[in-house]
Amino acid sequence: MADRVHAPDPAPVTFETRPDLYKHWRLRFDGPVATLAMDVQEDAGLSSAYKLKLNSYDLGVDIELADAIQRIRFEHPETRVVVIASQKERIFCAGANIMMLRESSHGWKVNFCKFTNETRLAMEDASQHSGIRFLAALNGICAGGGYELALACDEIILVDDGNSAVSLPEAPLLGVLPGTGGLTRVVDKRHVRRDLADYFSTLVEGVKGKRAVAWRLVDAIHPTSQFDQAVRTRAAALAAESADRAEAPQGIRLDPLNPTVSEAAVTYSAVSLTFNREKRTAELIVHAPSGPQPDTPDAILKAGDQFWPIRAFRELDDALLRLRLNEPQIGTILIKAAGDPEAVLAIDRTLAANQSHWLVREITLLIKRTLKRLDLTSKTFFAFIEPGSAFAGSLFELALAADRSYMLDDPDRDNFVWLSAMNGDLLPMSNGLSRLQTRFLGDEGKVADLLKRAEPYSASDALDAGLVTFAPDEIDWDDEVRLGVEARAAFSPDALTGLEANLRFAGPETMETKIFGRLTAWQNWIFQRPNAVGEKGALQAYGQQGRPEFDWRRT
Amino acid sequence: MADRVHAPDPAPVTFETRPDLYKHWRLRFDGPVATLAMDVQEDAGLSSAYKLKLNSYDLGVDIELADAIQRIRFEHPETRVVVIASQKERIFCAGANIMMLRESSHGWKVNFCKFTNETRLAMEDASQHSGIRFLAALNGICAGGGYELALACDEIILVDDGNSAVSLPEAPLLGVLPGTGGLTRVVDKRHVRRDLADYFSTLVEGVKGKRAVAWRLVDAIHPTSQFDQAVRTRAAALAAESADRAEAPQGIRLDPLNPTVSEAAVTYSAVSLTFNREKRTAELIVHAPSGPQPDTPDAILKAGDQFWPIRAFRELDDALLRLRLNEPQIGTILIKAAGDPEAVLAIDRTLAANQSHWLVREITLLIKRTLKRLDLTSKTFFAFIEPGSAFAGSLFELALAADRSYMLDDPDRDNFVWLSAMNGDLLPMSNGLSRLQTRFLGDEGKVADLLKRAEPYSASDALDAGLVTFAPDEIDWDDEVRLGVEARAAFSPDALTGLEANLRFAGPETMETKIFGRLTAWQNWIFQRPNAVGEKGALQAYGQQGRPEFDWRRT
Repeated sequence: MADRVHAPDPAPVTFETRPDLYKHWRLRFDGPVATLAMDVQEDAGLSSAYKLKLNSYDLGVDIELADAIQRIRFEHPETRVVVIASQKERIFCAGANIMMLRESSHGWKVNFCKFTNETRLAMEDASQHSGIRFLAALNGICAGGGYELALACDEIILVDDGNSAVSLPEAPLLGVLPGTGGLTRVVDKRHVRRDLADYFSTLVEGVKGKRAVAWRLVDAIHPTSQFDQAVRTRAAALAAESADRAEAPQGIRLDPLNPTVSEAAVTYSAVSLTFNREKRTAELIVHAPSGPQPDTPDAILKAGDQFWPIRAFRELDDALLRLRLNEPQIGTILIKAAGDPEAVLAIDRTLAANQSHWLVREITLLIKRTLKRLDLTSKTFFAFIEPGSAFAGSLFELALAADRSYMLDDPDRDNFVWLSAMNGDLLPMSNGLSRLQTRFLGDEGKVADLLKRAEPYSASDALDAGLVTFAPDEIDWDDEVRLGVEARAAFSPDALTGLEANLRFAGPETMETKIFGRLTAWQNWIFQRPNAVGEKGALQAYGQQGRPEFDWRRT
Repeated sequence: MADRVHAPDPAPVTFETRPDLYKHWRLRFDGPVATLAMDVQEDAGLSSAYKLKLNSYDLGVDIELADAIQRIRFEHPETRVVVIASQKERIFCAGANIMMLRESSHGWKVNFCKFTNETRLAMEDASQHSGIRFLAALNGICAGGGYELALACDEIILVDDGNSAVSLPEAPLLGVLPGTGGLTRVVDKRHVRRDLADYFSTLVEGVKGKRAVAWRLVDAIHPTSQFDQAVRTRAAALAAESADRAEAPQGIRLDPLNPTVSEAAVTYSAVSLTFNREKRTAELIVHAPSGPQPDTPDAILKAGDQFWPIRAFRELDDALLRLRLNEPQIGTILIKAAGDPEAVLAIDRTLAANQSHWLVREITLLIKRTLKRLDLTSKTFFAFIEPGSAFAGSLFELALAADRSYMLDDPDRDNFVWLSAMNGDLLPMSNGLSRLQTRFLGDEGKVADLLKRAEPYSASDALDAGLVTFAPDEIDWDDEVRLGVEARAAFSPDALTGLEANLRFAGPETMETKIFGRLTAWQNWIFQRPNAVGEKGALQAYGQQGRPEFDWRRT
């Protein structure tokens, strides 16, 4: 359905923040236990069209949450437990703000949900790979997205005050789904029985007390008088259990990225994004570092956030988010890697050799998450590999993540791509496979052979090996590239989104891909249905006069 | 988007047919090789609003295909290979008819794709479990759904005439996805590289000749002069390789179901479907058989299609299809099993003990497919277990498949449910797990313990064991049941469809669930987007004057 008239989406959005600028969260540290307490300011939403009552959230609130999780990982390596709590009495979180959803365009809704999903998955990633356990301390109202935030934690404690319940009231109240992984995590992560989950997901008032425990919706309940102590005790126990994080008292500071932003480009230190608005394309270049690179954990610690992979992938991440939210008209991204491939390969060697060091591991996980963000970005990516490029190892993942790659085959000019250990299993996609494994699905022998080879691949070698899609010669290059980009730009943007969402995720599905594939795709469908977003749809009718009116046909 | 004005969907549809009534297919048998040749009659579509040119198809064509596959399994056990061919010169199949799609309501499009997907999966099921190999003989034009039909086969042979190509032109031509598993099967079944698949799926003209083989889009090409012989040779070789089917010269005939159909009910021999249109509910009762049942393969062969499980599940399948296509307003199905549970358990024992017999296996596979059809039906299913019911073994799967189950706990009246070997691994869902495994996800020990117990479960036992959702007593029963059904009927039908599509498929994903989850959900989203179905969308604009006009925002 065509977007109805609504307040304009609050773009452009910036994604950088830091704790002293947080409006909606309080971050405290106490030894190995960090407490991240929600304290949403009603009047400080991204738009003035709604008020963020009852710790409900909009994208701005989630940007701070994502920033906090990221900073805890890099700046506070002593942290072993994060308590997700609320600063407001008897209110944990009422979920995504309904007025915000109602006023948003379809694209904004979709991108909002995608970002919040990525943030929750980043919490689970930190738990699984960084030994940072998350404990949800539900001190009161916990509805919809509030409960979904709790579901992303390792454990959930609910206050037992005769009133506080967990709930997913989206379907009965708003005619939409819990869109931040709730349905998937209830059955696939917490193993709530599917029939109980069905019932639970239709109960506006939710489930509380012993029943919430019996149905596995929460892990424990405690009376109000004992709640704070129970949370502290459980947090301490989780901290003691988590032996993953090495003794590492010193973190590194993540300073602002400070890109130069103009109508035509966003320019960072190692990444540049240049728009061609007429053609609806953007050129995204990642620049390799030059000169000698830190090659020990100590040297990396010393370099801090100026170490190239941290810089480059933080910048790439920021660029991708700007593309999604601020540049809906840009459909095709021409991705390039420029500079000295040897420097990238040297860094890859250092990263691969020092995976037991907490910071090296965090850097690797940052690269992984950023590349996943690229996989999940609804834009076409074409990689262009030309002489002078640096598609080596971790940067070659950009070409593997792209929908297609074009490599110039000019016998008069050197043009190579390189694999490294980083193309092995260190940077898995959300389907659990590496990009090479996904590319050569079912042919593990081929992947192993490719990884064994240390030499660079010329264009014809890369084509033969299946590492690039096309290798035109210098006579055909300009036309083939131009035609490829022009043809792409002419297709229905929605068909391309669907096409890419299917072809990029060949192979197995995981809870993560189910959230973005099954759950999100259904939610996006519902976000287009008159029964939700039509004039008398449930999302529009909620809180207004009158009840929703439904077209009762089941589809 | 609200449905645009269009020709009314050609409902009510009936799903029964037989070879002598086929309008669009020719079915021939030659020893172990069956040939199913497409010969679509342009003027014999379900609606006169379109012409089925170039072997394009509508639901009516697919109903005949599904019938043929089913009959080959039961009536022709000698068949080891089915050649899917075309009777038309230089035309294999142009795919789903575009005018038909354009004229259809959203719900019709969705149900059409669902049925065609189920038919193609039934072909793969026959290959995997019945030893019937499928060989696609592409003698010419093979586009879109035509190629997707080929992809459902074990092997694909393409004529090499310098012209004939395989193609998935949906995205570039129509702004929609190949909706019958094409994208999924290309990468997940045939392991076409994802970047090649991306390029292929944007090429209107498709890929032919050696490139089609090199990219794994087809298995072999043969020049026109050698094509027929190559198909015969390969079919013979596949027949020789397939040792699965026992020597079984004698099949059983599938006679018409002959239900009594009225405005208020559809009544079969073992199944009855009664509508309450005011409440938008239907009562679906499966009646257990009575008296002694055949208990050897020979006795089953002799009983033929009158053997109760064949009757009951063919009828249930037909009832489910009628519900989907003909009864869009009916949202909630009250499912009941009535009669003698001992008779069902006796049949279950016979089926479980004789899995090596071809007919027993086919019957089991029929039950499996029918229950999968139920899982995939976008209606709420509530099972009601009351005294006199026969929720035993294979019929208890109906309760396990339901979104919820209510079991009356009245100490004065016997009310039991029973498990049998058929609740083990013989009736897997499309996620590859049994319904018990899906219900108790991650707790294999519990499933094993349940299956070991031979005694019936009373309501309180069943509740304790987690086999039913609720067990109200006789005082609460009426109110609880009534309120549950009424509450369900008041929710947004779209939210329920999304909710059920997520909660029913807890656990692993398979190629099959990816087709219905990821691919179909995205397709349904696109089927709602103005870029496809708006006045100037690509699906509407195709073949009309003027090019489509797109909203270029990427979502």
